[in-house]
Amino acid sequence: MKIIHNKERFSIFLNDFEIINHSKENPFIFCGKGLPEYKRTKGFFHVSEKIDEKVPFKHFEILENKENEIKIKFFISECSMVILFKKEEERMKIYFEKTMPCVSRIWINLKSNKDESVYGCGEQFSEFNMKGKKLPLWVSEKGVGRNKKDITSLLADFKDDGGGNWYTTYFPIPIFISSEGYFCNIEHSSYMEFDFTHPEKHEVYIWGVPHSITISKKNSIIEAVKDVITYNSPQPKVPEWVFEGIILGVQGGTDIVEKKVQKAIENEVPVKAVWIQDWVGQRITDFGKQLMWNWEYDNNRYPDLPQTIKKYNEKNIRFLGYINPFIAKESKFYSEAVENGYFVKDLNGKVIDITVTTFPVGLLDLTNEEARKWIISIIKQNMIGIGLSGWMADFGEYLPIETTLKNGESSELFHNKYPAEWAKINWESIKDVSEECFFFMRAGYSQSVKYCPSFWHGDQLVSWSKSDGIPTVINAALSLSMSGVGITHSDIGGYTTLAKNIPEQFHVKRSKELFMRWTEQSAFTPIMRTHEGNWPDENWQFDSDEETIKHFARMGKIHSKLKNYTVEHAENYYNKGIPIIKPVFFQYDYETFKNDKKSYLYGTDLFVSPVIEPAIIKSQVTLPEDNWIHLWTLKEYTGGTYEVNAEIGYPPVFFRKESKYFETFKEISEIK
Amino acid sequence: MKIIHNKERFSIFLNDFEIINHSKENPFIFCGKGLPEYKRTKGFFHVSEKIDEKVPFKHFEILENKENEIKIKFFISECSMVILFKKEEERMKIYFEKTMPCVSRIWINLKSNKDESVYGCGEQFSEFNMKGKKLPLWVSEKGVGRNKKDITSLLADFKDDGGGNWYTTYFPIPIFISSEGYFCNIEHSSYMEFDFTHPEKHEVYIWGVPHSITISKKNSIIEAVKDVITYNSPQPKVPEWVFEGIILGVQGGTDIVEKKVQKAIENEVPVKAVWIQDWVGQRITDFGKQLMWNWEYDNNRYPDLPQTIKKYNEKNIRFLGYINPFIAKESKFYSEAVENGYFVKDLNGKVIDITVTTFPVGLLDLTNEEARKWIISIIKQNMIGIGLSGWMADFGEYLPIETTLKNGESSELFHNKYPAEWAKINWESIKDVSEECFFFMRAGYSQSVKYCPSFWHGDQLVSWSKSDGIPTVINAALSLSMSGVGITHSDIGGYTTLAKNIPEQFHVKRSKELFMRWTEQSAFTPIMRTHEGNWPDENWQFDSDEETIKHFARMGKIHSKLKNYTVEHAENYYNKGIPIIKPVFFQYDYETFKNDKKSYLYGTDLFVSPVIEPAIIKSQVTLPEDNWIHLWTLKEYTGGTYEVNAEIGYPPVFFRKESKYFETFKEISEIK
Repeated sequence: MKIIHNKERFSIFLNDFEIINHSKENPFIFCGKGLPEYKRTKGFFHVSEKIDEKVPFKHFEILENKENEIKIKFFISECSMVILFKKEEERMKIYFEKTMPCVSRIWINLKSNKDESVYGCGEQFSEFNMKGKKLPLWVSEKGVGRNKKDITSLLADFKDDGGGNWYTTYFPIPIFISSEGYFCNIEHSSYMEFDFTHPEKHEVYIWGVPHSITISKKNSIIEAVKDVITYNSPQPKVPEWVFEGIILGVQGGTDIVEKKVQKAIENEVPVKAVWIQDWVGQRITDFGKQLMWNWEYDNNRYPDLPQTIKKYNEKNIRFLGYINPFIAKESKFYSEAVENGYFVKDLNGKVIDITVTTFPVGLLDLTNEEARKWIISIIKQNMIGIGLSGWMADFGEYLPIETTLKNGESSELFHNKYPAEWAKINWESIKDVSEECFFFMRAGYSQSVKYCPSFWHGDQLVSWSKSDGIPTVINAALSLSMSGVGITHSDIGGYTTLAKNIPEQFHVKRSKELFMRWTEQSAFTPIMRTHEGNWPDENWQFDSDEETIKHFARMGKIHSKLKNYTVEHAENYYNKGIPIIKPVFFQYDYETFKNDKKSYLYGTDLFVSPVIEPAIIKSQVTLPEDNWIHLWTLKEYTGGTYEVNAEIGYPPVFFRKESKYFETFKEISEIK
Repeated sequence: MKIIHNKERFSIFLNDFEIINHSKENPFIFCGKGLPEYKRTKGFFHVSEKIDEKVPFKHFEILENKENEIKIKFFISECSMVILFKKEEERMKIYFEKTMPCVSRIWINLKSNKDESVYGCGEQFSEFNMKGKKLPLWVSEKGVGRNKKDITSLLADFKDDGGGNWYTTYFPIPIFISSEGYFCNIEHSSYMEFDFTHPEKHEVYIWGVPHSITISKKNSIIEAVKDVITYNSPQPKVPEWVFEGIILGVQGGTDIVEKKVQKAIENEVPVKAVWIQDWVGQRITDFGKQLMWNWEYDNNRYPDLPQTIKKYNEKNIRFLGYINPFIAKESKFYSEAVENGYFVKDLNGKVIDITVTTFPVGLLDLTNEEARKWIISIIKQNMIGIGLSGWMADFGEYLPIETTLKNGESSELFHNKYPAEWAKINWESIKDVSEECFFFMRAGYSQSVKYCPSFWHGDQLVSWSKSDGIPTVINAALSLSMSGVGITHSDIGGYTTLAKNIPEQFHVKRSKELFMRWTEQSAFTPIMRTHEGNWPDENWQFDSDEETIKHFARMGKIHSKLKNYTVEHAENYYNKGIPIIKPVFFQYDYETFKNDKKSYLYGTDLFVSPVIEPAIIKSQVTLPEDNWIHLWTLKEYTGGTYEVNAEIGYPPVFFRKESKYFETFKEISEIK
């Protein structure tokens, strides 16, 4: 780390790379004040503000200049701030030492260049390379449609501001990775904006003074991503069984589940687990078939569920359940939580009624230690205790801003931390049995990574929509991998079905073709799991016809065959910080693939370019330089652009000729 | 004017009223920089920016302190600005003397208090008292629906960003009038924002350094409005015939017009003029029946139109036409304008094709003196020359930002001035015959007032919508009167019909009831004029049934009967600065009526509370303290709240018992 300076300007270098260049015209830091507005409808937020002041700290004075510690006073007139740049473990930490109490906003500028690319920012559904874009980082529902030029999105906006936008996400992380080989991580949980629109600088805007900022410069973007995972730690391991076969999302009670599982097995579907989200019972609302949020099994629907689970376990089929941080008013736990003050309260100390879809519920106050212990004991007793091998740990985005929290923290800062604390609670419940059990979440923030074994990409539309359908799960997986998250998957076929209470021309229902294409894509991810969607009867399902179930069984078998390959690459993630699903440029030519958000590498040896459009029989793919073998025909290819067959059941997938899994891949090509 | 100060703070008083209070914590002026973005679709603009700097000029030095001239240097660090506060004609002018070249944004704070009300801001359709609101001032289409919670608005957004918002307007004026009895006028044409959300200050945000700011403090809000009209000058006079009878909007060619006028006359409709907007011919587009924009009469539709007009004139019926600042490609004038460089060009010097609804046209460059002379000569020859007694001078909101203008001016500054220059051109065409001729516009800005004899409120939805239907024309008239504009009216029945190319459940068509209520309201405005709407066949019209035409004739007769009364109050506007349509608090109790945007005074003696909701038979009205007589029953009332009969044909209207027009009003009550 070094600084070069004169009276007017300075540059700070980390590993000989110029990361900061301050001048009077282009100051490193601006300080100011703002009046925020957080408008919330359900889990959708419109965060905005009026900027009261944005003052460039044009002047500086170097207070200390040692090899590993540079201290600079930035000022204008009587306003000043002292910042310490410190080298720690080969990374640069930026600490804000003396700040004026009135500062509630800071803007930081890092050097950029117009040819740079920027990735990461947590789970992003629409954009991969963020250079040229500006985006907020705020945990929220991702929205339905996510595109203001899409009628689906407009109708969702009309209903409850639920249309979302290209950047709305359950799981932002205030970290970005530059193609120049560095990452920049903000250690703070306020609302933020990353502005990559300026050709020559990156602007990070923070609604508060962060604890610190960390910058790590490596020799390549790949090394930078590895260091993200070292720095933030990888996810905890999932049990190995998760990588094999299919987790079948079914519901409706013991008999219906039994029938569905039987049908799957008869058709050679490798059912590894049954996910019964309705283990707690079901209610029918305007929104769809929804669950009772009472966190004990429904003895009407699933009489003696523990016994049923045991019976299935003997056949090597596990059971998974569902939980979230809300408690429904019908639950016996509701009054207990109210009495003990376990729910989030408003500014007058009254429990806040939160409407998630159509019914009001209480939200657990995760700053309350007693509430945490209590929900952990419920999970241990009512979920692990009855034999479940895991669950969807849903939600985490709904903490309102105007609250009184037990530990006195402001919701402006706790809102983004909420899903990470929710992950930690689930992890604490499960960690003693984590060789058998796991859970998967959609919401998250920086600290979620080390507590959550798997993320799923949330509630996609059951459509081909570029902004909210099948294409977004690839973008999501890639942006998460660049942010240090390795074990991800999606609801096969998507979730959000629009089939009721709106005119028929605006319906969105899952088609056979979409279900089959989504199945194919999921075969080349770590976890294959289905979801019936919010209106199951309106959606195409795995057993809707014979062709579908055969295709589904075949893809499940292919996925199972890949188990050892997946386990090896999961280990690479856990131990070496190499994500399983990764951009092609991770291994190959950066320039060609820097904006590719359609193809990916699965492990080191599989090039996957899923079909994410309807009515495709041929597909154009660009292979990186290597010796490739087409998975279905075993025809050999080298780098270049080709038009290949892409009929249903045969999406463009290639393996490296030099792969040690050559024989496995060859066997896969023969699976009927 | 005086200043009281110490080292830390100062206050400036105008006529002993504290208008400015500066302190380090609450500075009078902030300076900064911003990166603007003007997104345009047709005449809809999304103006936004990234604020690069917003620096409080905390410190000051008084350079001069004379009775009528106070000069202050404001500064922080090396940045400074010298401002002169000068008393001129009993008003305070603020001049920005020495500004740094880098300043492109300024924020000015004036003192406020939480109980203050704020009015004006030009033509505002949804809000009357602006305290608590923040609004931009930018000339644009007002939008369809104007409410993001309204499906009509969302569909318009979906189509071409045309949904608008509560503040979008054709005719902003950067002036506001405070209930403390002063006005504040900004002499500049850039994009601005007025922020009245802070209880203790008004913030004026200007994208540039204005020529000056004028503040006039009077003893009352009424005196302040009068001074607005003295300062900005009143509108030019309309001919007296305009106040009498009905201007009938019809179209379709000589025969159809003749038939419609005959039918009107047979039914005793006092037709004073016929407005044939299609004098130039018609084209059918997806948007509706539209006009040929070629500015010469259509000899097929109206063979020998000059002769027809003469014939009608002999029967004391005038003819009105239509023009706008666009020229269609089909017109012979188009190539002439291209050859001579009369159109607005892009940054490469190429004529910009503007699509207003569905066809591309050229927009006249009003900074080009030759183009102005040319269009004036066309108006004189082709419109006045054939015998027209006036026209709708439509549009004026479409000047794009990325242009090359003849006089080198930036469109960022000329955009808002465009409609005022368009008004001036029309005025210059007509001024020699203004005892007979007039025109009416919808778009405007500060300088429009003195050139445009009448404004109409543009294209309302043919509905009861609070954000874009009949209620908005009352709000528009009141906000315009508070801004110094006295002669206003609206399309009877509204204009925007949604009847094609969208699903039927989203259709908006004019109903019989709406047409009749709108007719009633218009009888108590200076001008009664109908418009068939953009899909005439889908709308209820004056002659759609017998009941309607009878009601229409009766209201026309009532309006005619009011002529002398209207003329007297028009003179009060022209000579004394008292608007004809005015808020009730103009004459009566301020506290009771400060937020009333439903009732108004027409002249000094009529209290009008039109019915602007469907299915009303009784209506609650609050009368101010006075002796009132109900117009239809002649029953006497004093101040207070009453439920009165409000059946169709008998909207709540009361006259002052002491009025010198008592007999006239009595005669009106007898009109059948």
